[in-house]
Amino acid sequence: LIEDWPLFFIDDGQYLVTTRENLAKERPIGIMYCDGRGMMQDRVTALRQAIVFEPHVYRHIVGSTVISPTEDGSYAAASNFHILRTGADGAVVTYGCGRYLDEIVWHRGEMRFRKRTVVLDSSRIDTLLVIPL
Amino acid sequence: LIEDWPLFFIDDGQYLVTTRENLAKERPIGIMYCDGRGMMQDRVTALRQAIVFEPHVYRHIVGSTVISPTEDGSYAAASNFHILRTGADGAVVTYGCGRYLDEIVWHRGEMRFRKRTVVLDSSRIDTLLVIPL
Amino acid sequence: LIEDWPLFFIDDGQYLVTTRENLAKERPIGIMYCDGRGMMQDRVTALRQAIVFEPHVYRHIVGSTVISPTEDGSYAAASNFHILRTGADGAVVTYGCGRYLDEIVWHRGEMRFRKRTVVLDSSRIDTLLVIPL
Repeated sequence: LIEDWPLFFIDDGQYLVTTRENLAKERPIGIMYCDGRGMMQDRVTALRQAIVFEPHVYRHIVGSTVISPTEDGSYAAASNFHILRTGADGAVVTYGCGRYLDEIVWHRGEMRFRKRTVVLDSSRIDTLLVIPL
Repeated sequence: LIEDWPLFFIDDGQYLVTTRENLAKERPIGIMYCDGRGMMQDRVTALRQAIVFEPHVYRHIVGSTVISPTEDGSYAAASNFHILRTGADGAVVTYGCGRYLDEIVWHRGEMRFRKRTVVLDSSRIDTLLVIPL
Repeated sequence: LIEDWPLFFIDDGQYLVTTRENLAKERPIGIMYCDGRGMMQDRVTALRQAIVFEPHVYRHIVGSTVISPTEDGSYAAASNFHILRTGADGAVVTYGCGRYLDEIVWHRGEMRFRKRTVVLDSSRIDTLLVIPL
């Protein structure tokens, strides 16, 4: 369930979506920025309404993840992703691809995101705002 | 070799192909249903003949797998997949994508499928009947 | 950085690109053949120049890897891959897919490639010569 998505983060976790170009040019913030779980939950509410009008299925193919410990006790993880979208008519298209850059911490015996940065390869972003990537 | 495919299952293993829509609406069986290895072997025989006429290459990209132990000692596994098909002319297309839902058991020191359910995102299934997904 | 790519190999490591068809017909060498790191470094130099003219982004989605030890103490690894290319206009296309067949050895406490063979599913190779796959 999409409602579970904010639960993968710590309370003051951050979720960012940007593009490869923005990142390279050190533009501060990209396309989307959720600071804390409250903002993510608002996003889920908005999403539930959007789903009614856009009955698409999104499939995430996530490649091998490289994880390394950092000095502050957290873990840095990086994975490539490819998202496919299937429409109501059955047509399957590439929705987007890029890289997840994650900061992961232990929280009460579970691993959670402190920060997930989604870096899209493409700068064509107009349709990419509805679902968490 | 496609002939090895039934060997990944236990003797009375099950192989099902369905769609996300069928699963959501709890329709009993979807597109394909093999009950036991014999039915899978029949399928392989049919497939060998089909290959002669359809010289396609199928490439499976399988993302990270989530595995959890169950109460009866088996394991439940879930993975997303994307299948690409390359034709004789060299063109590459998305053939299908979706989710594998697996029940895995130990059998004489090896892990084997007791049941694999292939859940396709798309309900366009007319061309998806030839190969095991 | 693409400059790091040769560092994943041992000094006399080999990097080959071939097609599924070439491999099946046991044609000796396919599309590209680098024997030793020097040849790979030359390739990187050529690539840096090519990038100026072709500002594409290549995204590799690598599925689960099967690794098995061999008799000579090295490891044989096989993974399926899908490469997506994003153009300057933001369009994302499938660039190629196939299989990596690797020989991996320990070298001063690190794992390195002794040999990587890239087997492309498609024989349409004219545009596939610029970047290491």
